[in-house]
Amino acid sequence: MSNWLLPENLADILPAEARRIEEMRRRLLDLFRTYGFELVAPPLVEYLSSLLPESAMVSDLNLRTCKLVDQLSGRTLGVRADMTPQVARIDAHLLNREGVARLCYCGSVLHARPRGLLSDREQLQIGAEIYGHEGVEADIEIIQLALESIEHAGVTGAMLDLNHPGVFHAIVQADPALVPLSDEAGNLLAAKDAAGLKELAARSGISATSLDALLALTGLYGQSEVLLRARDTLPDVPGMRAALDELEVLIQALPAYEFTIDLADMGSSFGYHSGATFSIYAQGWHDALVKGGRYDGLGAAYGRSRPATGFSFDLRKLSSGLASAARTRAIRAPWGRDPELVRIVRELRRAGEVVIQVLPGQSHSLDEFDVDREIQHRDGAWQVLPLA
Amino acid sequence: MSNWLLPENLADILPAEARRIEEMRRRLLDLFRTYGFELVAPPLVEYLSSLLPESAMVSDLNLRTCKLVDQLSGRTLGVRADMTPQVARIDAHLLNREGVARLCYCGSVLHARPRGLLSDREQLQIGAEIYGHEGVEADIEIIQLALESIEHAGVTGAMLDLNHPGVFHAIVQADPALVPLSDEAGNLLAAKDAAGLKELAARSGISATSLDALLALTGLYGQSEVLLRARDTLPDVPGMRAALDELEVLIQALPAYEFTIDLADMGSSFGYHSGATFSIYAQGWHDALVKGGRYDGLGAAYGRSRPATGFSFDLRKLSSGLASAARTRAIRAPWGRDPELVRIVRELRRAGEVVIQVLPGQSHSLDEFDVDREIQHRDGAWQVLPLA
Repeated sequence: MSNWLLPENLADILPAEARRIEEMRRRLLDLFRTYGFELVAPPLVEYLSSLLPESAMVSDLNLRTCKLVDQLSGRTLGVRADMTPQVARIDAHLLNREGVARLCYCGSVLHARPRGLLSDREQLQIGAEIYGHEGVEADIEIIQLALESIEHAGVTGAMLDLNHPGVFHAIVQADPALVPLSDEAGNLLAAKDAAGLKELAARSGISATSLDALLALTGLYGQSEVLLRARDTLPDVPGMRAALDELEVLIQALPAYEFTIDLADMGSSFGYHSGATFSIYAQGWHDALVKGGRYDGLGAAYGRSRPATGFSFDLRKLSSGLASAARTRAIRAPWGRDPELVRIVRELRRAGEVVIQVLPGQSHSLDEFDVDREIQHRDGAWQVLPLA
Repeated sequence: MSNWLLPENLADILPAEARRIEEMRRRLLDLFRTYGFELVAPPLVEYLSSLLPESAMVSDLNLRTCKLVDQLSGRTLGVRADMTPQVARIDAHLLNREGVARLCYCGSVLHARPRGLLSDREQLQIGAEIYGHEGVEADIEIIQLALESIEHAGVTGAMLDLNHPGVFHAIVQADPALVPLSDEAGNLLAAKDAAGLKELAARSGISATSLDALLALTGLYGQSEVLLRARDTLPDVPGMRAALDELEVLIQALPAYEFTIDLADMGSSFGYHSGATFSIYAQGWHDALVKGGRYDGLGAAYGRSRPATGFSFDLRKLSSGLASAARTRAIRAPWGRDPELVRIVRELRRAGEVVIQVLPGQSHSLDEFDVDREIQHRDGAWQVLPLA
């Protein structure tokens, strides 16, 4: 095979796009900083047991994690597929603070298998997390920051979707026949595939109550009245009331944001969310752009259980749906060692201008820059002149 | 084992340090941009055969590359240990430009084994490369940009070291007994270990001429007169004169930079350099901070041989040797939904201030921020007041 071929669902990011992602990375990390989020950078690979806390061992996160052998220890390492457990580890063990810790991060994550046929296996995950506060104030700050991030990046008309994975889990845990089918049922549910759910029930021993509850979930979508309908319609199995109560607390406390509730939307599929979750959707992206929510207790795997809430998203995916930005303007200059030319080039660069010296006998074609001026020697001096 | 332990030679980067590395990343990518370098971002993993072009297959780069199996194709993937071959692939195949391409990049690379006992296995590699120009002008631009980068990052008193790996290779290729020992001899040479070289010769069939040449290299260190001494002292084996001539062309063309020549310094150990190489050293770092040089022909592995020259370095290593920067100033604010408070907080954040809202009943301790002001309600209005 040819050496220039890339594996499926992996891609190079070329000039204009790479610079746009870099700009967005900066704007968002700067935005997080204005809220007091401190930046951390966990390693690309860790022991698999650290990357996959117990609750995630049997989940999608395990399937998505690439494994390799550590040449130093002989133990299995994983390439991170999600940075949130790493940041929870840093909060629980390294920082070991008593009070609140606000942490943010931006780094590459790798998926062994793509989420969809066209999904990238490499993502540039950016996110923010609040540790140490169980009150709803932390959730509100996180939702506000997530919405502001998307707006900051130039996305208009974002829609906020709320959910609580405890609702679905309560239905699953109440029916032993449903437990082993929970992933399949969850996917059908997310697709609001009522026919598929009925077919699943027909070929398995799922109880009629469970099927009714799952079918009810596909219709529990709308404004805050959904919660009232949910209390009427869903079975009062263990855990159900607690989940709906938690969602109600969040909704009562939310400022004037518009939102919908979608009890069929499972939120993050990595399986560590313990409380209310949210997704942000926008036109131009066919699935959720941002996912977040509460995951109290993930830190327990690292020796210290802490309340936690946060969000993350893939900067590359965000960028792919945005209109192209204007290219950066640039100045062309001849190659030369004339001290006056060298001085002018240096000063223009220090002022932030892009000055491209044309190497002897060479041509240029550029994706990232729009060369609209030129340094020429005219009337006995070097001058910056517009290009025709 | 405890889940919070990291594998050896891998580390978390914690708040103040992570932000400093981020700042440096921005300054350097912005500097590269002012020279017209376009940003690219190759993937974290690729087919092993793409990451390791033929010339590097048997080299150190192979030993340092972590391997894993692609679940989609069943083929072996490598986690990049060096981004230069990836960028050469992008130039050769994706951009496919006729003229000059200036490319830059910044991303994590992983080493299966650390270079030294205390070396990190993960590095944040940043670099710049010029493709398509075989003239010395490209080398000079690259050396100038490398020196300016280091200065920009706050390093003072950097020292430029020049070499040409062709000198050592010519000696090796002339002696069949030395070929299989070339890595060992190269390491002894880099350490200027004359006793070790003699011991190596004594227990192997290396010719007296080869040993004399290697011993001569350990002393060929100094200003440009070293080249004259090299022509006198070193054997006129095939390739020797060409290498010394290329080095001479570079030195003649170099502007008024101070430099030393060190013919025992092998430059990059990844084995793809084909022409003059350089290293930048500075006080505070025990080995080279920056490595670079010419590697014409690396693109041939990707279907198109192109002249190429560039440099790269590890931003984390650079940061670790610099004095800590002052912490960012921040403002503390009470939690609350008072519209006037919300407005003031939003405006301060938009102006770039860090405003940390204290969640009800919580304390804070911060590494990255220095909280020196507070928003208080006094005399009927919210005011920003200095903290005692």
